[in-house]
Amino acid sequence: MTSAAETAAVLFANDAFYLTFQTSDIAAMDAIWSSRDGISCIHPGWPPLLGRAPVMQSWRSILANPNQQAVQAHAASAEIYGDGAIVICYEVVGQFTLVATNVFAREDGQWKLVHHQSGETPPPEADLSEPERTLQ
Amino acid sequence: MTSAAETAAVLFANDAFYLTFQTSDIAAMDAIWSSRDGISCIHPGWPPLLGRAPVMQSWRSILANPNQQAVQAHAASAEIYGDGAIVICYEVVGQFTLVATNVFAREDGQWKLVHHQSGETPPPEADLSEPERTLQ
Repeated sequence: MTSAAETAAVLFANDAFYLTFQTSDIAAMDAIWSSRDGISCIHPGWPPLLGRAPVMQSWRSILANPNQQAVQAHAASAEIYGDGAIVICYEVVGQFTLVATNVFAREDGQWKLVHHQSGETPPPEADLSEPERTLQ
Repeated sequence: MTSAAETAAVLFANDAFYLTFQTSDIAAMDAIWSSRDGISCIHPGWPPLLGRAPVMQSWRSILANPNQQAVQAHAASAEIYGDGAIVICYEVVGQFTLVATNVFAREDGQWKLVHHQSGETPPPEADLSEPERTLQ
């Protein structure tokens, strides 16, 4: 597979992840994630979830919540490292803008999600120029 | 290398990353990161930085800032995927608690940082039980 085709395949897997917010399809969400026990997930403002059971429980809770808004991905970019890939994208959830790290691993020729972290970020058009910034 | 030894090597590389906050050693920080152009970094509340030049510029700014507090890592856990590894750890910065994703890639037998995202999280001891949570 060419590098461009590989990148397209990873971004397709990333799109499939966000599509589940429109369909609230927990079976699809389950299939998007790796079946390994070592998967992990950091939702914005949540403590880290380590292991398949707490990660999938969180998605069942989120997708079953009638107040959960759709999460739309924008400006996704992928970097491939052998059998791993990192996708970075903005997430728009109602009035909030988040930025996410999605890490995929190639398993039996398919890109499977193994880690997700999402956190708040300024909207892309915001002016963030400051001479000295700190981490908090 | 055994799995336990590999995990120890990844966690050692993760510790080296946080040690640079105590030494403000930009040369050490540069060496901890992969030399690839495709590295990326998402500081808490910042827009995503894609590419080696903006990532290293951000670290030069942060490490040179006299108001930057040390960042102490706690409860790091590593998951290895072939030549890639994901480390998740808490970061304590003054009164703030953050949680980070650090992604490493094995290059010439050494684990090199290729991606970092950090965002706010409740302290580990906080009670977060809520029946239905959303992503915002």
